[in-house]
Amino acid sequence: MVIVMQPGACEEHVEGAIQAVKDFGFQAHPIYGVNLTVIAVVGDKTQEHLEAFELLPGVDHVARIDKPYKLAARRPRVTETTQIDVSSAVFGGPKIAVIAGPCAVESEDGLREVAEGVRAGGASMLRGGAYKPRTSPYSFQGMREAGLALLKMASQRTGLPFVTEVMDTRNVELVARYADMLQIGARNMQNFSLLSEAGQTGKPVFLKRGMSSTIEDLLMAAEYIMSAGNEKIILCERGIRTFETATRNTLDLSAVPVLKRNTHLPVVVDPSHGTGHAWAVPPMAKAAVAAGADGLMVEVHQAPERAVSDGPQSLTIQEFATFMAELAPVAEAVGRTMA
Amino acid sequence: MVIVMQPGACEEHVEGAIQAVKDFGFQAHPIYGVNLTVIAVVGDKTQEHLEAFELLPGVDHVARIDKPYKLAARRPRVTETTQIDVSSAVFGGPKIAVIAGPCAVESEDGLREVAEGVRAGGASMLRGGAYKPRTSPYSFQGMREAGLALLKMASQRTGLPFVTEVMDTRNVELVARYADMLQIGARNMQNFSLLSEAGQTGKPVFLKRGMSSTIEDLLMAAEYIMSAGNEKIILCERGIRTFETATRNTLDLSAVPVLKRNTHLPVVVDPSHGTGHAWAVPPMAKAAVAAGADGLMVEVHQAPERAVSDGPQSLTIQEFATFMAELAPVAEAVGRTMA
Amino acid sequence: MVIVMQPGACEEHVEGAIQAVKDFGFQAHPIYGVNLTVIAVVGDKTQEHLEAFELLPGVDHVARIDKPYKLAARRPRVTETTQIDVSSAVFGGPKIAVIAGPCAVESEDGLREVAEGVRAGGASMLRGGAYKPRTSPYSFQGMREAGLALLKMASQRTGLPFVTEVMDTRNVELVARYADMLQIGARNMQNFSLLSEAGQTGKPVFLKRGMSSTIEDLLMAAEYIMSAGNEKIILCERGIRTFETATRNTLDLSAVPVLKRNTHLPVVVDPSHGTGHAWAVPPMAKAAVAAGADGLMVEVHQAPERAVSDGPQSLTIQEFATFMAELAPVAEAVGRTMA
Amino acid sequence: MVIVMQPGACEEHVEGAIQAVKDFGFQAHPIYGVNLTVIAVVGDKTQEHLEAFELLPGVDHVARIDKPYKLAARRPRVTETTQIDVSSAVFGGPKIAVIAGPCAVESEDGLREVAEGVRAGGASMLRGGAYKPRTSPYSFQGMREAGLALLKMASQRTGLPFVTEVMDTRNVELVARYADMLQIGARNMQNFSLLSEAGQTGKPVFLKRGMSSTIEDLLMAAEYIMSAGNEKIILCERGIRTFETATRNTLDLSAVPVLKRNTHLPVVVDPSHGTGHAWAVPPMAKAAVAAGADGLMVEVHQAPERAVSDGPQSLTIQEFATFMAELAPVAEAVGRTMA
Repeated sequence: MVIVMQPGACEEHVEGAIQAVKDFGFQAHPIYGVNLTVIAVVGDKTQEHLEAFELLPGVDHVARIDKPYKLAARRPRVTETTQIDVSSAVFGGPKIAVIAGPCAVESEDGLREVAEGVRAGGASMLRGGAYKPRTSPYSFQGMREAGLALLKMASQRTGLPFVTEVMDTRNVELVARYADMLQIGARNMQNFSLLSEAGQTGKPVFLKRGMSSTIEDLLMAAEYIMSAGNEKIILCERGIRTFETATRNTLDLSAVPVLKRNTHLPVVVDPSHGTGHAWAVPPMAKAAVAAGADGLMVEVHQAPERAVSDGPQSLTIQEFATFMAELAPVAEAVGRTMA
Repeated sequence: MVIVMQPGACEEHVEGAIQAVKDFGFQAHPIYGVNLTVIAVVGDKTQEHLEAFELLPGVDHVARIDKPYKLAARRPRVTETTQIDVSSAVFGGPKIAVIAGPCAVESEDGLREVAEGVRAGGASMLRGGAYKPRTSPYSFQGMREAGLALLKMASQRTGLPFVTEVMDTRNVELVARYADMLQIGARNMQNFSLLSEAGQTGKPVFLKRGMSSTIEDLLMAAEYIMSAGNEKIILCERGIRTFETATRNTLDLSAVPVLKRNTHLPVVVDPSHGTGHAWAVPPMAKAAVAAGADGLMVEVHQAPERAVSDGPQSLTIQEFATFMAELAPVAEAVGRTMA
Repeated sequence: MVIVMQPGACEEHVEGAIQAVKDFGFQAHPIYGVNLTVIAVVGDKTQEHLEAFELLPGVDHVARIDKPYKLAARRPRVTETTQIDVSSAVFGGPKIAVIAGPCAVESEDGLREVAEGVRAGGASMLRGGAYKPRTSPYSFQGMREAGLALLKMASQRTGLPFVTEVMDTRNVELVARYADMLQIGARNMQNFSLLSEAGQTGKPVFLKRGMSSTIEDLLMAAEYIMSAGNEKIILCERGIRTFETATRNTLDLSAVPVLKRNTHLPVVVDPSHGTGHAWAVPPMAKAAVAAGADGLMVEVHQAPERAVSDGPQSLTIQEFATFMAELAPVAEAVGRTMA
Repeated sequence: MVIVMQPGACEEHVEGAIQAVKDFGFQAHPIYGVNLTVIAVVGDKTQEHLEAFELLPGVDHVARIDKPYKLAARRPRVTETTQIDVSSAVFGGPKIAVIAGPCAVESEDGLREVAEGVRAGGASMLRGGAYKPRTSPYSFQGMREAGLALLKMASQRTGLPFVTEVMDTRNVELVARYADMLQIGARNMQNFSLLSEAGQTGKPVFLKRGMSSTIEDLLMAAEYIMSAGNEKIILCERGIRTFETATRNTLDLSAVPVLKRNTHLPVVVDPSHGTGHAWAVPPMAKAAVAAGADGLMVEVHQAPERAVSDGPQSLTIQEFATFMAELAPVAEAVGRTMA
């Protein structure tokens, strides 16, 4: 940590800051520059006192230097991604893992049709919402436990493991009984109780980046789960909120190389929520794979025009098959494979 | 709702869209313009089918016309704000309600000192965090129930009602037993389970705007609580996330006149979280009152340099007294009062 | 255009708005909905009066329905991109056009080395800044006309046409005498005088998206140039400003499919400015090609650690060769070619 | 400047970085921390080499410590604002300076009516656009020199000095012959040629913050003008671009206290462009004054419903009079005056 004194700070203030650093048990290294004086602070857990130093007389601001996440951080000089197996689906290996399925579970027949369709298309995993976070209280909120049961049936029939969102700490145990992987949605990425609770189940966690979360925030959310003893985390970029309204969100694909540089956890991209338009899903999925993503999450519906939610961003089963076929050469072009 | 056809859409597609509207039981009013054709859709709950229309062949997009919130909306030609009483504190009346206290409850002595200080300064209500949403799992997470008990004691001693954040559905009942008002924090504004649960307690709810939430999102979150049968909601602007880093968030004070125009609920501003700097709190608090806010939430600490969180944005007890004195003429200048 | 009346607007106000529409010479189609009344306005150039309608009594807001750009718009049912030839470089054809070179022209030797290096690597066009927009007045501002002359020499020696930025209307003619294509930078995308002036030269224009410009803003800027009689425009996505600080800007690759859907102009992506880090350029360039971009602009420097600007985002000549080799299979995977 | 080495950087890389610092003629102070090593760099103009250090092997990033603006910066321990006189209008003194007038000059009669109206209401200065930056090439572009002449006439008749926007370096001299102050608009805030040219006229410059510019960017733009020898600069906050669409821009009023802390230049707020709605102008103007702004810029039109641009955000002459009357007690509440 570096304490930056105000330009022209008097000697008394500089001395006071140095003393304060020592009082906390840290070492203080003052550096007297041309325009201003800074004090480098050395010690463990200095960050916990960052705010206190900011309040000392004559201090302009305190610059954090090191990264606040430890368990999620890539170890020095290690370049491999941690491979995470979720039943038969593998994230972080040479094969691009594709999670596909409807936004929400709506009916047994529909779900079965989609599950079989996406398995035939080459998906590694099934998705489907049983508990739905909806902006309006008047919208369909999901089939809840009945939806979980349908997902389990579709999973068993197709052999695809499934992931589903959990929104409430009270349901974590229930959802974990059914699902192969728990999804923490964008709106709950900083629901810290939910992160800890999901971490304690030991189930793999699919962690979506919040709409206004920095990449560092995402890694800190992963750190919550990891510090609860669960290292099986898959990170998902799904678009951030910006001024651009042509797409539902702004898919931040640069997050892929940034994450690859900073963490050992696998990275998945969701172009369905990231763009909000079915016609934008194939090009952005190809882009994600080309950028180095380890997997994709895409919404597929047997009849998007009748979907209760997210129809406009859902591929049909037929479109999904084409999508997977078109992705294969892109994956190969970057040394990966789709199957 | 208005369905906008693509430029040059063929007659068959226009007819198809009209038929689809009728099939849903709505009226269709096609309007043939110079450059394109639009179809106005008339009926109740047309919004639930917006996405389905977007997927019809030849449709460019669907424009939503009416507002999605009903209970939170200001009634036509009614200009009054709904007054909400939380024990002795009144929100939405002529007096500016000031909620003050530490970011987190840390100790009995500290809390008592702050509570007595802010009451002496003229606060209407006490605040203090017992459960803390912290970006890092390694930071202090709050005193939990012990913190609630200390808040209750400080409240009884000073006669000030208190508000505290609830972060987990499992704690709603417990927190509601102690607190006079429940706070839903920015990170949980779209934690829909928590909104419903808080709504069902019947306790007043202090609802903070999410960092990436539009004003409409905030009103939809209020709608969740109201549709659960609880109309006692106070809205709080506390800053949104933008590219500017000079302040912790960008306090969107224009939200005050926008909310005043669109909802009958009282509006409070939190300049402490909105700016992140104690030196910016007094000018922005004055600005909030001048813009028409019904109240303020400010962080006050007996010794900010020793605070476990948010020290740099906390006023001292002495500063709080000055702050209140300086606010009084501003409140009077806009026809309000501080006491 | 659709005039949306306030909920509960009285009959008199609705009648007044209808009359106002007629007074402007347009047709008014009122539609009486369940919750509110809207008035569809039909006629040419209705948009010019949008603001006037917004001010009528009882009007809530006016919804624009059609797109404000005409010349830049894709014609109905036409899917081809307009191919633009800039000397030997072709944009919008099957081959991915790559523009490469240093951020700024610094010296004859350095430029020659880079120009020969990027030609050997397979670039289609040379870039280099002679006039530099620098945030600080104390930074190097470019070699100006001497830089143009060096670019011309390097271009003649290598046979690569070149593009360079013009920042001042007074220099447009001069720059156009040297350059094969004029670049309008992000900071000048809404410098409307410069757009018109560049348009009038008849030279192809390379138009970069502004940091806070929507895709529609970008197309309106293109419309400025096109309405000045110049249809040879190449659009460039180079990142927008968001809250994320891990990258210099947030490269909005979704702009590629959105632009492909809405305009017939070729689309180029600049991952150097879009990310700010040389290590992020190769993955994001691959992503851009996979997403359907027609070309790339990348910064290459013979010795990035000695560059006067943008060193950290510049590839070395060696890295550029590897970069091009790695791009080839990605281009082929989406039916394009690098050479 | 502080060079932050990667976690686990080897000794050789640390030594290399130290040597590189010395090679540039600076002092290097390595600090060996618990988790990482940093090297403080001391010397003048170290910032010019920041990027070079970023490229050294083993370096994670380089943290800038000191502020990049010098002339615009508040001097240590000096709290006064520099007072700038523009003819009879004074910015930075106890009186709040109000600049008022139409968005665009449209006619002699209209302008005269507004000019007399705003003088009667208490404005200090007249505004009006002769050259208009319009998003669409099909919109009214301004009366140009004829507009300047009308402004001059209105100014002479009322005794109010006037400010008008200059958009093109070629017009700076012409505009400077007529106007008392030159406005650099938001879209041209980083048109560095224009900044330098405006600086060289010696006329006071009214510098609007760009829509995606940080406060530091704004101060760097001021630095451009100041380094061209012109210290008479008035800064204007007019809203930034964010995801919120309820207002035209997001007025960042926190910029007022931030600027007051960092620069000695006067600060004006433009709530008309900042909000885009006439009904939001009075509350946000009051908020600006309460936050400590030195002045306001507001759009006033004799008949907003007939304005060629920005009608919805313009006050009528009558509304302006009320506006000024309502501002007076707010100004007094913060120790200022309106007249």
